[in-house]
Amino acid sequence: MPEQRIRLDINNVLRAGAQHGLTEDELTGAEKQARQAVQAIQQRRASGDLRWMELPYADVSEIEHMAADLRHRFDDFVVLGIGGSALGNIAVNTALNGPFYNLRRERTTPRLFVLDNSDPEFNVGLLDVVDPARTAFNVITKSGSTGETLSAFLFFRERVIQAVGPENWRDHFVLTTDPASGPLRELVRREGFRSLPVPQGVGGRYSVLSPVGLLSAAVTGVDIRQLLAGAAYADELTRQADPWRNPAAVGALVQVLLYRKGIHIVVMMPYAQRLKDVADWFAQLWAESLGKRVNRQGETVYVGPTPVKALGATDQHSQVQLYTEGPFDKLVDFIRVERFAVEGRLPQAYTEMSAFAYLGGHSFAELINAEQEGTAVALTEAGRPHMTHVLPEINAFTLGQLLYLLEVQTAIAGELFDIDAFDQPGVEAGKVATYALLGRAGYEGRRAEIARAREQHDEHWVI
Amino acid sequence: MPEQRIRLDINNVLRAGAQHGLTEDELTGAEKQARQAVQAIQQRRASGDLRWMELPYADVSEIEHMAADLRHRFDDFVVLGIGGSALGNIAVNTALNGPFYNLRRERTTPRLFVLDNSDPEFNVGLLDVVDPARTAFNVITKSGSTGETLSAFLFFRERVIQAVGPENWRDHFVLTTDPASGPLRELVRREGFRSLPVPQGVGGRYSVLSPVGLLSAAVTGVDIRQLLAGAAYADELTRQADPWRNPAAVGALVQVLLYRKGIHIVVMMPYAQRLKDVADWFAQLWAESLGKRVNRQGETVYVGPTPVKALGATDQHSQVQLYTEGPFDKLVDFIRVERFAVEGRLPQAYTEMSAFAYLGGHSFAELINAEQEGTAVALTEAGRPHMTHVLPEINAFTLGQLLYLLEVQTAIAGELFDIDAFDQPGVEAGKVATYALLGRAGYEGRRAEIARAREQHDEHWVI
Repeated sequence: MPEQRIRLDINNVLRAGAQHGLTEDELTGAEKQARQAVQAIQQRRASGDLRWMELPYADVSEIEHMAADLRHRFDDFVVLGIGGSALGNIAVNTALNGPFYNLRRERTTPRLFVLDNSDPEFNVGLLDVVDPARTAFNVITKSGSTGETLSAFLFFRERVIQAVGPENWRDHFVLTTDPASGPLRELVRREGFRSLPVPQGVGGRYSVLSPVGLLSAAVTGVDIRQLLAGAAYADELTRQADPWRNPAAVGALVQVLLYRKGIHIVVMMPYAQRLKDVADWFAQLWAESLGKRVNRQGETVYVGPTPVKALGATDQHSQVQLYTEGPFDKLVDFIRVERFAVEGRLPQAYTEMSAFAYLGGHSFAELINAEQEGTAVALTEAGRPHMTHVLPEINAFTLGQLLYLLEVQTAIAGELFDIDAFDQPGVEAGKVATYALLGRAGYEGRRAEIARAREQHDEHWVI
Repeated sequence: MPEQRIRLDINNVLRAGAQHGLTEDELTGAEKQARQAVQAIQQRRASGDLRWMELPYADVSEIEHMAADLRHRFDDFVVLGIGGSALGNIAVNTALNGPFYNLRRERTTPRLFVLDNSDPEFNVGLLDVVDPARTAFNVITKSGSTGETLSAFLFFRERVIQAVGPENWRDHFVLTTDPASGPLRELVRREGFRSLPVPQGVGGRYSVLSPVGLLSAAVTGVDIRQLLAGAAYADELTRQADPWRNPAAVGALVQVLLYRKGIHIVVMMPYAQRLKDVADWFAQLWAESLGKRVNRQGETVYVGPTPVKALGATDQHSQVQLYTEGPFDKLVDFIRVERFAVEGRLPQAYTEMSAFAYLGGHSFAELINAEQEGTAVALTEAGRPHMTHVLPEINAFTLGQLLYLLEVQTAIAGELFDIDAFDQPGVEAGKVATYALLGRAGYEGRRAEIARAREQHDEHWVI
């Protein structure tokens, strides 16, 4: 097997200079912080905390068995989930099945749809595409009570009942939820739905390598054992206390040190169409884990880097102008793929015209990688810090490695920021307001408050 | 016809307080600036500059004629373009044809693919989906020399020749490029390709309402006259010198005033799956227009707000934690849709469980709008500024209105920042470096420089 290890190149963080990048002294001076953060994470893990770190070693035979059955019985597979119950599924599918999976003429596994929004046209529109009688639904919510997901469940449940009758409709559903508690687990007990557990202690945004992400992957033919093998390999790399051998530690350290210098935005920019949705998955992981009002001492800190998703080469024609000339507030994290599955050789034609002559004979693979390097050179010359995650190729092993590596990087960054990277208290207020607006019992007081706030609304400021 | 006017609600910019929002005095005190900026734009327009502002009044009969012909002769329509030659096409298609357009069982118009990346698997992968013999390609590049686009042209040109032979292959291509100059225009003259013009003086990111965006829209059945009628309506709204009647002026003013207070990020967050890609289109418009190293006096300013694309309700479970608890560096620009084309009524079931009981009887439309309001309430309570563009519904008229409104907002913001909102000098360096790396004639010196820079690369900092 050729080299499968992901490497992190931070040369250009050092070249951006002392003001907008890091010096070698700053980096090496922070070695102890990084070492302690890695050790703190591993100690929490050893004490039984951070259960997501053990996911690479889980037994997946039940998932594979269920997937094989679903694959044979259904044409289409629909995930009903949102946030951490959707982003990993989408990222894995785009990366390993490719951007055209659902449209390919030759395909022996079910199409995959991830309905991660309570938009009416999105949900109703799916009925123009799939036949409920030939479709399986995977309802994923750890708590078992996520409003968007239960709404979709109610909606498609009725459609399946209409399509196949009141006897067999439950066979079309797999409920992935807390192993012991919550409304969906209660339904599993009462009505005998098939189910999978979201293992206890595994939060939504750290759940891609659990049954949350693995069932849809297995149904669509992904080798989930290789995905976990890659994650286990990343575990070896990222448990090393020596930060200079640990890409998660260095990735976290660079970003936290730059944050302290006012570089508050990280742009994740893969140069590979297949990794587009990994950037989206990462945006949740980074934003929700590190964006916090208080630190672990309860002090108000309002901390948190803002992740921005970009895609190379596409966004060279959209965002790179800002990245090279705008404020010095960004670190770009490139993802570069060394070997693509196909090269896409470009034929020679119109070689008498200089705009065409230099292209013929090259391949799309050479072109996109030259564009990545060209953009990197331009950023360096503009004094902008950037680093690069280099993937030897995109496959289940390297993807599992990348996902786990970025999860550990996030946990280490949480240690360095001294915040809780595993909660999300800031989403509660909006949820409660939504319950109140929908008239949920017990939220009447909140509803009255919102009504009073509405009264302050001034039409003068509506233009 | 029910009310079709888009309104901009800035109440919650004022409620965020003097430090992180704006006071009424600050806003009203800037009235003169806003008025002057609107007038400056309209004066430049009157002098023959800013030709994109006249696009709503163009004759589109040639485009409609060509679209009708293409629609009948081909199964699939592929845009080869990048940046401004792709983002508008994608935004219009998702908004008006819906997220499942290519997969719908009932569809009388060709599928649409926009290949906006030089990724090998993306380009080669399309051949698993479309039959080149039944596919039309629209090659879009204003300069006629964009490397990514010409590469894709070379690649698919050969595939079409292989599929239909050396006689008829040119019928499969429409070249949209500068009306007078450039390599593609030369090919049109030499080889008789069908073509459309990118009108002179219309830059890529302001070209969605030109033939760049209109041909693919018309091919897929969009009423492009309504799109332009909406844009013309927005022109009426946004040419008003009184800023308090001009949503583009207020949108620009709020953002520039907040930028001066350190709020450097704008999150565009539509609560509608169909508008997801409008946020992406806006991200180019805003970033590339306003991210500038120098102002119009040539002084170094390194200015530019960073646009972030989000999607409601989805990203409540991904980004809202950061928006409510992280640093005070963001303005959220919601887009809210008053009436959806379908409601998606939720049936009653499991009403004995409180997690289900409050949902039954509501609709997805009610749910997503309650979520938008719930998130808005939470942001207000957390002291975060936000504003809302309210669309009565999503149709060609309101979409054209929104696109034009945001373009004018960008131009006004450029005036307020005192920068050139219509150039993109910062993308040149990366392009030149790419040419050098690919061995383009004339770039040998640059190639040698890059080779020397590579030699400084230190393997020690690759982890």
